[in-house]
Amino acid sequence: MTNNLEQYTASQAVALLKEKKISVESLARSCLQRIAERESSVHAWSFIDPEHILRLAQEMDRAGPRAPLYGLPIGIKDVLLTDDMPTQYNSALYENFHPHIDASCVSLLRQAGALIFGKTETAEFASSGNLAPTRNPHDFLYTPGGSSSGSAAAVADCHVPLTIGTQTGGSMIRPASFCGVFAFKPTWGIVNPEGAKIFSPSMDTLGWFGRSVDDLVLLNNVLDPQAETMPVVSRSSARIAICKSPVWSHAEAPTKQALEQCAHQLKQDGASIIDLVLPEEFNVLAEVQKLIMLSEGRASFLAQYREDKSKLHPNICAQVENSAGYTRKQLREAYDIAAHCRSLFDAIAADFDAVLTPSTPGPAPLYTQGSGSMIFNGMWSLLHTPCVNIPVIRQAGELPLGLTVTGARFSDRHTLAAAHAIVQ
Amino acid sequence: MTNNLEQYTASQAVALLKEKKISVESLARSCLQRIAERESSVHAWSFIDPEHILRLAQEMDRAGPRAPLYGLPIGIKDVLLTDDMPTQYNSALYENFHPHIDASCVSLLRQAGALIFGKTETAEFASSGNLAPTRNPHDFLYTPGGSSSGSAAAVADCHVPLTIGTQTGGSMIRPASFCGVFAFKPTWGIVNPEGAKIFSPSMDTLGWFGRSVDDLVLLNNVLDPQAETMPVVSRSSARIAICKSPVWSHAEAPTKQALEQCAHQLKQDGASIIDLVLPEEFNVLAEVQKLIMLSEGRASFLAQYREDKSKLHPNICAQVENSAGYTRKQLREAYDIAAHCRSLFDAIAADFDAVLTPSTPGPAPLYTQGSGSMIFNGMWSLLHTPCVNIPVIRQAGELPLGLTVTGARFSDRHTLAAAHAIVQ
Repeated sequence: MTNNLEQYTASQAVALLKEKKISVESLARSCLQRIAERESSVHAWSFIDPEHILRLAQEMDRAGPRAPLYGLPIGIKDVLLTDDMPTQYNSALYENFHPHIDASCVSLLRQAGALIFGKTETAEFASSGNLAPTRNPHDFLYTPGGSSSGSAAAVADCHVPLTIGTQTGGSMIRPASFCGVFAFKPTWGIVNPEGAKIFSPSMDTLGWFGRSVDDLVLLNNVLDPQAETMPVVSRSSARIAICKSPVWSHAEAPTKQALEQCAHQLKQDGASIIDLVLPEEFNVLAEVQKLIMLSEGRASFLAQYREDKSKLHPNICAQVENSAGYTRKQLREAYDIAAHCRSLFDAIAADFDAVLTPSTPGPAPLYTQGSGSMIFNGMWSLLHTPCVNIPVIRQAGELPLGLTVTGARFSDRHTLAAAHAIVQ
Repeated sequence: MTNNLEQYTASQAVALLKEKKISVESLARSCLQRIAERESSVHAWSFIDPEHILRLAQEMDRAGPRAPLYGLPIGIKDVLLTDDMPTQYNSALYENFHPHIDASCVSLLRQAGALIFGKTETAEFASSGNLAPTRNPHDFLYTPGGSSSGSAAAVADCHVPLTIGTQTGGSMIRPASFCGVFAFKPTWGIVNPEGAKIFSPSMDTLGWFGRSVDDLVLLNNVLDPQAETMPVVSRSSARIAICKSPVWSHAEAPTKQALEQCAHQLKQDGASIIDLVLPEEFNVLAEVQKLIMLSEGRASFLAQYREDKSKLHPNICAQVENSAGYTRKQLREAYDIAAHCRSLFDAIAADFDAVLTPSTPGPAPLYTQGSGSMIFNGMWSLLHTPCVNIPVIRQAGELPLGLTVTGARFSDRHTLAAAHAIVQ
């Protein structure tokens, strides 16, 4: 008997665990049972050891509640180092690779009492190589999105209430949109990425997936060293900018409709809705993001390339070989454009409680067609802004879809509060 | 009998090793003998295992030459992970810490045939905590500078021909100046810092120490994925900007004199010498660098702080606790000022083959007075520019002193070529 404890959100689960209304072991067993039922179709996990998990859970039950994440199962994207589990990056070069060290965020989660549950599937090195084997839990014919494929699917399918992912282009927000879960990518620099495979150091950001905004806040409280009291954004007086973004032409009908409907409902509830057209400088940012990401990737995969390039996906080899032919002069210019637009966007965003914009062109494509487009995400990764994916309500039988709530750099708490108001 | 092989520069040693005129083992034994004679006074090494080194050396001799660093002993700053050695960060939290994983640059060095020799002493986490126990090999009463104290001293004292260090403020160029060795801090982003303790991710840069500009180029060839043919800068037609920098008031008489003499000699040899006064915007950069470094340090040491703050130096606790009271608004503004000045400096530097500027206020202070000031280095770390420390000629009995050769971002090869011309 497990009573479907795996269905609780993280916030619900930590409250029950703290009050000892459920045991760590019972929650872990519920999650493991759900995984046992679903994993052969979903393929969210690259490593999971039920015996190890139950041993840890029993130890936690004996030791008793320890705030604030006591006993909470959390999955870790398999590009982050874990002391007690292998880290394999979905790379043939790292089969059974197992250095005994925790990434910084894994240490912080353990210190907060979390139960590190296992490693979630990723695209090769969270980059453009081999796709994760993970399927969209809403329909196995479809992609869950990448590169944090397993982290998004594991939360969507109630394997665990929370997971850690990473984003350089669209690796958190895209799969969150396709899987219908909440995700938060903090401002660049707030969470220490030490122990994550580096792809693009000027943009790589750790983030997390959950099944409510409260769950995103729960981890923000632990991982942000400056987490102050949450501000309150009232839905009825919120100022929300609707930003179709310079890549609006990529938006499909469901995304257009979702943004319009969300704006309409907010307006009906009293919010001020302002159409935001970004200055022309922003039109090149999708290209600038790609140039920086692939140029920095040149150094990031050099050691793997020299080790054995036959074991690297051709797309990753192409980064090291700079097959796109980017020059360092272009990279320098790209850095300067990015920096200029960061400052510009902060000033623009200061007028609003949040900026609402698409997360993906539409719902998930078929698994055989790749992991979907990051075209709506790259700009925000480049601008370093905090991004929340909020799922929108869909008709029965339709695949999920999300919208992005963003704001100025370091407005993480305000952006989370705005997301809370928007999903009310 | 070891014939003082440890006195060879890296470039000399690799040529002799390649031609099998010396064996890897004989060079390793010479280095080990020198270390045995000097280490009890210099304290450059936090870990060294002679038996392990000799085993590796013998294997290399059996396997035969493998370009381009075959058999070359290289020391690694003890904030970088090494598969076959502990990594201790000069921190009580990491005594005997030994995860089995190589930092990216260590992998690249091994792939190039280098003999990873041992771990060099560092200030705690390459930050502002406990000083390294290392002494200046020119006079044990004096500091070698920090934070890459052991790496600079080991090269200066001929323990090994090359070492790896890191710089966030002045952690490479300052000790190079105090120890009288060459050092190179590449443009930010060129060398993958994966596996190095993160202090300030927007500025942390790996670099290396050697006993000639050629030695710096040797490693640049291996670690820079885009290393093209070296340009040639002719001393007699070089355009060199003399930059007293906005912190010139900190320069002591020997530094003033060194810069003047170097400029004078270059002029005599036909170089064009231009006095460069930077725009007013640059006056705040020393403060901006400090604000970013300490603000980013807040996240970087959070896990260690929560693990056991009693084992962290108060200066590092102060970063996590933000005792300076920096706001995130200030941090955002600091990022924007830095980005603006990066672009501005690149445009200024484009008119010159190199910019020549002080490395330190003067020679090394006494060991008991700390590891010296980074006031002349922070700005360049912030601006992401490539920096070479070149030692200047001093009177017998005087402690060493260096000057910095720098240039626009990504002018690494040109800056090294200019440094070569300047030291001729």
